[in-house]
Amino acid sequence: MSIVYLNGKYLDREQASLPLDDRGFLFGDGVYEVCRAVEGRLFALDAHWSRLQKGLAAIAIDCRDRLDAATFAEIAHRLLERNDLRRGHATVYLQVTRGAAPRTHAYPPAGTPPTVYAYAAPFRVPTELREAGAGAITLPDLRWARCDIKSVNLLPNVMAKQRAVEAGAFEAVLVREGVVTEGASSNVFGVIGGELRTHPATPHILHGITRSIVLEMARELGIAVREEPLLSDDLLHVEELFATGTTTDVQPLVRLDGHVVGSGAPGEITRALWRALEERMLRH
Amino acid sequence: MSIVYLNGKYLDREQASLPLDDRGFLFGDGVYEVCRAVEGRLFALDAHWSRLQKGLAAIAIDCRDRLDAATFAEIAHRLLERNDLRRGHATVYLQVTRGAAPRTHAYPPAGTPPTVYAYAAPFRVPTELREAGAGAITLPDLRWARCDIKSVNLLPNVMAKQRAVEAGAFEAVLVREGVVTEGASSNVFGVIGGELRTHPATPHILHGITRSIVLEMARELGIAVREEPLLSDDLLHVEELFATGTTTDVQPLVRLDGHVVGSGAPGEITRALWRALEERMLRH
Repeated sequence: MSIVYLNGKYLDREQASLPLDDRGFLFGDGVYEVCRAVEGRLFALDAHWSRLQKGLAAIAIDCRDRLDAATFAEIAHRLLERNDLRRGHATVYLQVTRGAAPRTHAYPPAGTPPTVYAYAAPFRVPTELREAGAGAITLPDLRWARCDIKSVNLLPNVMAKQRAVEAGAFEAVLVREGVVTEGASSNVFGVIGGELRTHPATPHILHGITRSIVLEMARELGIAVREEPLLSDDLLHVEELFATGTTTDVQPLVRLDGHVVGSGAPGEITRALWRALEERMLRH
Repeated sequence: MSIVYLNGKYLDREQASLPLDDRGFLFGDGVYEVCRAVEGRLFALDAHWSRLQKGLAAIAIDCRDRLDAATFAEIAHRLLERNDLRRGHATVYLQVTRGAAPRTHAYPPAGTPPTVYAYAAPFRVPTELREAGAGAITLPDLRWARCDIKSVNLLPNVMAKQRAVEAGAFEAVLVREGVVTEGASSNVFGVIGGELRTHPATPHILHGITRSIVLEMARELGIAVREEPLLSDDLLHVEELFATGTTTDVQPLVRLDGHVVGSGAPGEITRALWRALEERMLRH
């Protein structure tokens, strides 16, 4: 039995439900976060809270009555506790929508309470995939111009991820006008000439928490880093390629569109960053 | 008391609800239609059904088990009947999502039943606004590259419409790289040199049913028509401007970003098309 959080209450998943006119369902009108927990400790929780705040502000959802930093942390911890997830790895998902109201594009009347939904789930680190590396495909980036807002308008991501799965790949690497932006549900890094490159934190990508941590760790490790996008032509001769994310960690990508990347095995920089991230998650 | 349709059942709205893991809520993973009813007769229902089919195919939702043309029509008619909406104007909204399943971007296992939700609502034609004309603002078109899919990923539309409302305007006219695409929830037409212009039916706009009917009526009326986009510079000297849609009908736009459009009153071509549409809706 799974216990979820919905608008102030902890409920059995089977007993909890949404009104049909929730704006999440009708418009994808909301934002979300996925947090990682290790041994009951939430990793980078402040960064997730801060990004959620930015997203809520960007789309003008005011949920201060229902959610503050302390409540956010409490919900996450209680969900871990009540679902017996204080051992090993787990994730906590939290979504805020503009609430339920008769359907009309513009915002509902002031005072319409936002919907706050959260759940926790066990997570198994796919160690073999991290060690062996995974395949990816490239796809055109069809998304909107505000990918920095972590909204639940995820249809293009869903479609891209599905194409990856159908191609037997782990991730879709998205390319917008010749520029590698990110993955369908991860940020993408490449190594060229020994230098680590990733798309800068513009509105064309999600500003991944793991992306920031990886950049910070790379600098600490003395790796040359440049926040400048890979071009699609660069993909033909990257030495290393990897994806990052809250559940993606540092995932080596060793095949791209059926071609071998670099040596065909996870590269040195990728492995160093994955080790560093693992250590951070364990000791934080 | 309002009766809605959900997955084969007609239910009181208050008694009907959605599971928390419906992909409509988590990903905006679905498509929808809004149909117009006049005196209990559904206007252009076949065209709406056909577009819904295209949308479902585009995002690979198979709901043949739950919905065919006859069921679509039956749901719409029964909702009108059970909600006492067979007199005057009304709308029927129908949404299909990829169903409920544990959250993961890629599609859920085959056999996961899609969610089919529909409701009917009364509609009042805002005659004064049609006669006087309305104001609009221009905004950058931030949307994705597949606006021809009528999906519930509507956050950019919601944000644009809200900006219009806050500016005291009826609609936001969206501009992508100097090209007028459409409105936040309507298609946009302009008259320049006596010629009617609107964006062609590419993936950058929704292929509005009313848009098609208006183009057809314009040709019947001997109006010169060109499916070529207005440029944002054209907006400075359009003679007439109007928006079309299932509930927008033919809505004259007489102010744009605070400036008067044409004579400041609904133009001749706009009025002729609005009269023709009204007639079609009444006699169909």
